[in-house]
Amino acid sequence: MTRQTTMLNAYTPGAGHLSPEDRALAERRSRALGPAYRLFYETPVHLVRGEGVHLYDREGKAYLDTYNNVASVGHCHPRVVEAMARQAATLATHTRYLHEGILAYAERLLALFPAGLAHVMFTCTGSEANDLALRIARACTGGTGVIVTDNAYHGVTLATAEMSMSIGPAVAPGPAVFPVPAPSAANYPEGVAAGFARAVNDACDRMAAQGIRPALLIADTIFSSDGVHPDPEGFLAPAAAAIRARGGLFLADEVQPGFGRTGSRFWGFQRHGLVPDMVSLGKPMGNGYPLAGLVLQPGTIAEFGAKARYFNTFGGNAVAAAVGLAVLDVIRDEGLQENADRVGRAFAEGLRALASRHEALGETRAAGLFLGQTILSDGRPDPARTARLVNALREERILISSTGPAGDSLKIRPPLPFSMANLDQFLTTLDKVLARDG
Amino acid sequence: MTRQTTMLNAYTPGAGHLSPEDRALAERRSRALGPAYRLFYETPVHLVRGEGVHLYDREGKAYLDTYNNVASVGHCHPRVVEAMARQAATLATHTRYLHEGILAYAERLLALFPAGLAHVMFTCTGSEANDLALRIARACTGGTGVIVTDNAYHGVTLATAEMSMSIGPAVAPGPAVFPVPAPSAANYPEGVAAGFARAVNDACDRMAAQGIRPALLIADTIFSSDGVHPDPEGFLAPAAAAIRARGGLFLADEVQPGFGRTGSRFWGFQRHGLVPDMVSLGKPMGNGYPLAGLVLQPGTIAEFGAKARYFNTFGGNAVAAAVGLAVLDVIRDEGLQENADRVGRAFAEGLRALASRHEALGETRAAGLFLGQTILSDGRPDPARTARLVNALREERILISSTGPAGDSLKIRPPLPFSMANLDQFLTTLDKVLARDG
Repeated sequence: MTRQTTMLNAYTPGAGHLSPEDRALAERRSRALGPAYRLFYETPVHLVRGEGVHLYDREGKAYLDTYNNVASVGHCHPRVVEAMARQAATLATHTRYLHEGILAYAERLLALFPAGLAHVMFTCTGSEANDLALRIARACTGGTGVIVTDNAYHGVTLATAEMSMSIGPAVAPGPAVFPVPAPSAANYPEGVAAGFARAVNDACDRMAAQGIRPALLIADTIFSSDGVHPDPEGFLAPAAAAIRARGGLFLADEVQPGFGRTGSRFWGFQRHGLVPDMVSLGKPMGNGYPLAGLVLQPGTIAEFGAKARYFNTFGGNAVAAAVGLAVLDVIRDEGLQENADRVGRAFAEGLRALASRHEALGETRAAGLFLGQTILSDGRPDPARTARLVNALREERILISSTGPAGDSLKIRPPLPFSMANLDQFLTTLDKVLARDG
Repeated sequence: MTRQTTMLNAYTPGAGHLSPEDRALAERRSRALGPAYRLFYETPVHLVRGEGVHLYDREGKAYLDTYNNVASVGHCHPRVVEAMARQAATLATHTRYLHEGILAYAERLLALFPAGLAHVMFTCTGSEANDLALRIARACTGGTGVIVTDNAYHGVTLATAEMSMSIGPAVAPGPAVFPVPAPSAANYPEGVAAGFARAVNDACDRMAAQGIRPALLIADTIFSSDGVHPDPEGFLAPAAAAIRARGGLFLADEVQPGFGRTGSRFWGFQRHGLVPDMVSLGKPMGNGYPLAGLVLQPGTIAEFGAKARYFNTFGGNAVAAAVGLAVLDVIRDEGLQENADRVGRAFAEGLRALASRHEALGETRAAGLFLGQTILSDGRPDPARTARLVNALREERILISSTGPAGDSLKIRPPLPFSMANLDQFLTTLDKVLARDG
């Protein structure tokens, strides 16, 4: 499969149909932020306000957000903002003083996990959570080898960037990082469950041949950047067993699928009937506040905890805990997991129904409100057509992006309050855009 | 010098004089957060509220904060809280859409730097900023070697923990990390400026002998965890020249001294008459909101930016930018740098005056409101006495901690609105506590 060497859906400086004001902003970005920052879309979007599933530009025009999974309970949710403001006005210190807030949140969060996952450590970003998991896995296993899928994304620290093949060839995989093909039916004709487990075992053999001991198999349980691969349910369990049989740990990266997004379950790993050794959390955890964490089985941290300490200045501070608790309250009180299940199923059905009239729509892969939709031309995946559709939808004020190693799939993951009416707008607009592109 | 193998000023579980309620909280922490978390003090402090330079316990008793440099413009500063709440209720998205906020903040921040430091990249933590600096330095120099001081602290990611000797022997220095003695007069009898530059050059020789090319000299410009070493002004310039002469970059870690704390200058490196290649920012930047960053000379990022991109989901989001801007406004409008200069000088004078009556008070090292105070017994540095004083002050409701490789110095860095009256309370209480300990 062709690997994308540049970022999917990135703006090319100087291109697009920007207003003079927006062009000036883009130029100020280059000057102040330097050459490593990117904007989305052929013509970038300039946003000034967010509410629920909508974002608004300077002229007050609404964009339907079908992309941003960080503002998971809805942009600028008033209960979350209020919890943040109240705690920030009361106390905002770190974890080396006693405080009830971090414990109320930690216990509430841990109650959402199977019993074996009994500890949680707080960081600010998913990158930090995965980076910490690697440090802990090294201490626990005595190994250093890491297995990732071949278009994975797990973070931007030095260690996690080297585990993130989706960043592209500019970042070499670390010397102890062993990629395996993503769990798609195309990659594993013998069946994904058996094939993926075999690939993990083969990677351990390759490590052994280099004198490297396994530390970790890390899997985003929805395989977002690999193109979204949720099915068949249960396929991950044999791979987790395989890494454990070789002395390594299984880390479920829930930064993308966690917190109810997959609908039928609160965590992506639960669709696979397994209990991970460690679970990393991030993006939707604080609805935009920098909050992330690592949930662990106590046995994994015993060795690290006996020798070393962990302190993250902002991680688990009193405001972070209050925000995290408010997010859990909103998910429960507004039935957002159930909504993700119901609207997510209708979303997948709607795309499949549309496929009967548009040859561009290939396979739909979905779990709740996390969907990957392959885009075809003449029956073959077409990254260029995918990019055209992403930009055509943006012109219709629907925000979306693409995914997969070649960028041949739409990536769909709206805020969880996404309604049937929002879905109807999306499908109607996609229908129109596909008809124009045909 | 003896290296501390456990954390300075850490609570021993089961010890201390905790109330039944606080003991229950401490036990809940162990169960929920696991073995790698630590509390401060022989008897931990349970806090519920903060305001200005004070923190309050459940009974409403006030603690004078002479330790926390994160809430740098004062605990729960209303202007910062209001900016956070207003932006969080309006828009809280990431850097891949156009938004004025990040640019207003970036330009305001960069105006505080010498002209050559023209770009800023945003992260959530100082760890992430230093980790990113290492990635950029590797791309820029083609080298991997890093020079740190021998009790440095630069972060908790895998890469930065391996650069942080203060974490103790549980974390081995990375294979390309070369420690040098901290810039104290005791370590460099020939003079700190020449001696430290020679040590950097020697470390490059040791790298060369192992076939390693230099990437980075990283220095906390106040050398906080090394014991606080601000003087003589200018001593860092020859070391920065030395690493550059060998092909590496000089990174000023301003996570501790930055944002006006050193009084006479806004940044710690400015006391040394040099312009760093890169500057990392953190702790006080968002007054507790997880906000950090890396300021760079454009030449350092050219190679990285041409090949790779950088995206940090929460880094530089619209709320972070609004908070960062409010912090800069408060520092300016309340004259906090000037206050740090004025009260900081009085602080150092007060400690030196007290030393005439207490043989326990050795050398005072200070720049603005960042002070290190050596504690002696019979003329020799005494870590045990330092720990007794830290805990005795805590019983008098003054929060402080210790520093240095052996933990033989008080570490003093209060919120910047610290007043002359606050100073008087501190000195009077220290006088009393020293008299009891004599």
